[in-house]
Amino acid sequence: VSTAAIVVIGNEILSAKIADENGPWLTRELRALGVEVRRIETIPDEIPLIVDALGRAKSQAKWVFTSGGIGPTHDDVTIAAVAQAFGRKVVSEPRILGMLEARYGDRMNAARKRLADVPEGADIDWHDGAYFPVIVLEDVAVLPGPPLLFKEGFGRIRERYRSAPLFSRAVYLALGEGDLAEHLDATVAEFPQVSIGSYPRFDVQADYRVKITFDGRVRDEVEAALAFFRRRVPEKCILRED
Amino acid sequence: VSTAAIVVIGNEILSAKIADENGPWLTRELRALGVEVRRIETIPDEIPLIVDALGRAKSQAKWVFTSGGIGPTHDDVTIAAVAQAFGRKVVSEPRILGMLEARYGDRMNAARKRLADVPEGADIDWHDGAYFPVIVLEDVAVLPGPPLLFKEGFGRIRERYRSAPLFSRAVYLALGEGDLAEHLDATVAEFPQVSIGSYPRFDVQADYRVKITFDGRVRDEVEAALAFFRRRVPEKCILRED
Repeated sequence: VSTAAIVVIGNEILSAKIADENGPWLTRELRALGVEVRRIETIPDEIPLIVDALGRAKSQAKWVFTSGGIGPTHDDVTIAAVAQAFGRKVVSEPRILGMLEARYGDRMNAARKRLADVPEGADIDWHDGAYFPVIVLEDVAVLPGPPLLFKEGFGRIRERYRSAPLFSRAVYLALGEGDLAEHLDATVAEFPQVSIGSYPRFDVQADYRVKITFDGRVRDEVEAALAFFRRRVPEKCILRED
Repeated sequence: VSTAAIVVIGNEILSAKIADENGPWLTRELRALGVEVRRIETIPDEIPLIVDALGRAKSQAKWVFTSGGIGPTHDDVTIAAVAQAFGRKVVSEPRILGMLEARYGDRMNAARKRLADVPEGADIDWHDGAYFPVIVLEDVAVLPGPPLLFKEGFGRIRERYRSAPLFSRAVYLALGEGDLAEHLDATVAEFPQVSIGSYPRFDVQADYRVKITFDGRVRDEVEAALAFFRRRVPEKCILRED
């Protein structure tokens, strides 16, 4: 199955300086590609915590994406952490180094040289005019934190992840969860392959009380689960579907 | 030190049906209270994954907050997971049960009875007119997922977490990270107690190239680190502070 984990590396998010855009954006992109996101972990710019999160991500999902911690300054430690997670060395990539030398000339310095560092054996996605490389090591893709770069970088590798589509249906009800639970239990028991969620609303803006969602890889199963559930609930309590 | 971890339990977030509001909101609230958030983990409604996340959260932070998975339906498994993480039984809380019986009368059923389930020995925050209890077991606070309820529930317990304030300063520069890195390294070496971050912008809307942040518990150290860094950078490249 096509599953993913997202590791967001960013003190600026944990200290509430900015809200993370990349995690929610990538979650939507992956979903549209048919990839099921299993976890999103936001952690500090600290190598041991990144290595730990990468290990968990790799063991729980097929694909792993990191956001942030790429660049020339002291708080950019993602490359070192990814290398460590794989037991690889960090090496200077000649193609990137050449590009940096052409770009910076006599403004080249130790910090800018770090931009050519990659885990040994990584695949480099690079093209003329690109501002930065996208680094992919086995199933881990390393993307920069600024949303503009994150999105452009993911765009370069997006098609690698396209999978069988995920199907999703929903029904909106005028009945509370306490009255729906037994019908949900029956539907869950009958359709173990369909992921069924129940989401109540309590705010006055809502024009329904509960949204029930049906998700799966097989369209007919998703439709059958929705139909089975609908038949059990009083027709007048069903407001709409989507 | 006052640190926190947030565990967001929600298939609806991982499947991109909604964007999580509670994690970013609670991160801002905790920061304002002087609590440093160390991790935010978004995971599915699955007991083993919740137990695993709670163990990690408890070991890496003083306070733990969960969002979601509370209610009467099959996908509401947070109470069972919290009990399991502490090796406690799930018991029916008589005060909550009494309130539910008064509220629902002859519409009481097995699903609604589940709303009185709590991990044995938990502290219950409850008052007349409250729609739901806030359950706190040792350092773990259990909050419901709908943002309206999440925020109201946190409001009841907020003052328990107030700590010594965190101080934050920032300076905005017209110079790139490659030119700033050596000055950052020097500042980091001189002020090990201050957390220093470097955040470049690449979008045309930005009126600066890099924002450098200084965070710490001691105001004088934060101010001294900022002043030390400023002295090393050409004055004309400093655009503003906040």
